Amino acid sequence: MKSERIDSENSSNDLPTGNKKEIDFTPLFFPKTMAVIGASKNPVGALKYVRAHKDTPIKVFPVNINPELDELEGLKVHRSVEEIGQEIDLAIIGVPKQHVPAVIRGFKDTVVKFAVIFTSGFSESGNDDLQVSLEEAIASVPTRFIGPNCLGIYNPRARLVYFPGYPCDETDGNIAFISQSGGHTAKTNTYLMSHGANFSRTISIGNCIDLKPPDFLPYFKQDPDTCVIGFYLESTSDGRALMKSLRDVTREKPVIIWKGGRGKVGVQATASHTGKLAGNYKMWEVMCKQTGTMLASDFDVFAGLLTMFSFNIPVPVSNRVALVACGGGNAVEAADFFETKGFKIPELGEETKKKIYKFIPDVNTSLRNPVD
Amino acid sequence: MKSERIDSENSSNDLPTGNKKEIDFTPLFFPKTMAVIGASKNPVGALKYVRAHKDTPIKVFPVNINPELDELEGLKVHRSVEEIGQEIDLAIIGVPKQHVPAVIRGFKDTVVKFAVIFTSGFSESGNDDLQVSLEEAIASVPTRFIGPNCLGIYNPRARLVYFPGYPCDETDGNIAFISQSGGHTAKTNTYLMSHGANFSRTISIGNCIDLKPPDFLPYFKQDPDTCVIGFYLESTSDGRALMKSLRDVTREKPVIIWKGGRGKVGVQATASHTGKLAGNYKMWEVMCKQTGTMLASDFDVFAGLLTMFSFNIPVPVSNRVALVACGGGNAVEAADFFETKGFKIPELGEETKKKIYKFIPDVNTSLRNPVD
Repeated sequence: MKSERIDSENSSNDLPTGNKKEIDFTPLFFPKTMAVIGASKNPVGALKYVRAHKDTPIKVFPVNINPELDELEGLKVHRSVEEIGQEIDLAIIGVPKQHVPAVIRGFKDTVVKFAVIFTSGFSESGNDDLQVSLEEAIASVPTRFIGPNCLGIYNPRARLVYFPGYPCDETDGNIAFISQSGGHTAKTNTYLMSHGANFSRTISIGNCIDLKPPDFLPYFKQDPDTCVIGFYLESTSDGRALMKSLRDVTREKPVIIWKGGRGKVGVQATASHTGKLAGNYKMWEVMCKQTGTMLASDFDVFAGLLTMFSFNIPVPVSNRVALVACGGGNAVEAADFFETKGFKIPELGEETKKKIYKFIPDVNTSLRNPVD
Repeated sequence: MKSERIDSENSSNDLPTGNKKEIDFTPLFFPKTMAVIGASKNPVGALKYVRAHKDTPIKVFPVNINPELDELEGLKVHRSVEEIGQEIDLAIIGVPKQHVPAVIRGFKDTVVKFAVIFTSGFSESGNDDLQVSLEEAIASVPTRFIGPNCLGIYNPRARLVYFPGYPCDETDGNIAFISQSGGHTAKTNTYLMSHGANFSRTISIGNCIDLKPPDFLPYFKQDPDTCVIGFYLESTSDGRALMKSLRDVTREKPVIIWKGGRGKVGVQATASHTGKLAGNYKMWEVMCKQTGTMLASDFDVFAGLLTMFSFNIPVPVSNRVALVACGGGNAVEAADFFETKGFKIPELGEETKKKIYKFIPDVNTSLRNPVD
């Protein structure tokens, strides 16, 4: 019951850089079987994945080596993934950090297509030796991995969520979101959903040792559920692949990056978050400009752009805008906002002004752009 | 029943630049008598001031030259301010723009301490001759004026509001707000109040021909109801007086300016809003730095700072901050925010780290600043 690595070109022991060939993400985003490894009675651990999915169409198998734990949430507890005796589309790994490499090496003897490593405490906490051991384990099996130090996948159409009670509607959303922060994943999800903007998929990708941000772009480019793609990124170990993928996808769908780690202290803070250095912000500005990617300066701008493009409007072809505001102060504020963000606000043509004039009263109004 | 100009040093025909002597603003902020000039049955005109105040302790006198209009909202309509036969603390002028100068010249024959010129359509709409005529009328009477092209005064403690139903609590608020935009006045009021931050006074000052932004600073400096002062400004005709007043008041109370009109188009938009050019944004940055004034880059920052200082925290003595965040992404975001706004986020001392260590778990945490 052994399987080949899904991206079959990666036959060497090199860590996959992804993006070599389109990966079939169906078992990741629409899993039929899910093993929750390390599920115990601890309510802040992997148990939440068991609880969140046991009443969904996904078949859930709790796995725990403890021989005294026979049953969890009414489900039989297995001693290993192999013992389950069927192919696993998605495994969630929530065992203590020092046991993660051994668990992964155990995947050699069965079929686990994708795994989310929920456990944290690797290079982001200074445990570099453990991270090396994890990388070696990952490279030794055909399974593709999300994480470590992450929440994994949210796909409302598959009832695949992060916690019990996570908002979920099978017909929902068109925003894809890939994030190196679990906190920002949940915050972006709940904030936008509270404003009526919903998601096709979100991926909390953590330290992204195996599957990396650019690996997902070809999938989202062709995904009919997705019309705009957002990233929260702090670092990339794969700049060339990211640029190539961005350049390819931005011709068809808008892509917005919120880059964490801008200044000196912000960059340091990323090191203790995902274990990597953030790189120079200027470089990210240049990369976005060259690839037609929008770079959001902060969360508010990011959330605003995602919401706007969730209305399925096309990728803008220029930075020229016409503004219509109600009241002089609002006109000034709108002009200031768009100018500081690099937009042009050209004078309107005489014909356009004449047409607008028919609709607005002659009290304290202006036919310049911004129209007030 | 004639009165001297309240700022009695202004005896020449020069327009008062204010700030020469402290003005007694009590009749403006706590009027006992209010004349609403131009009050008619038109619901979008001055009628709203009659409606908003007729059930308050303020005695309201509607004034309209139309001999057929005897009664409005159950109140007798007068033919002129003089006919009212008593001193008026605050007059609201809502007559059509071409009649405003004549109404003001009529104040010679009675006592009107302060007047709000609600009417718009002067230099902000290109009617420069009418503005000159208005300036001459203003200079010819001792009354002090707010506006034109403005909403006037909001003082919840005096039940003095902008519209019927405007939120109003006699015990409320400690934020003073002075704005050259009526729209931003209402928006700032309602936004902050919806977040639980309330106002001591707000002044929608419009084109500010007579009373100008610096005139109010000595009052707010000593006002026990006010602990933070905010401005929305697009222009100043009185830069030196503003700098002097700012330098004086920022030693005791925090002052925050949100400057409208930053870029080329924003500056143009201010011309059709309050009839003045906005000046160079760099100059405003320098002025704020030299006077210890905080310059908010946009409405969100402005609203955030006003809310923060409404908790009556003292004026900060340095730009060094310690940040505590829940989650790595939030730590990075907070560091990015404060760094891009010019704050320093220094490394914590060993003693401080030891003390914090006692309170946080050893899972995926960082004792650097930001503490995660």
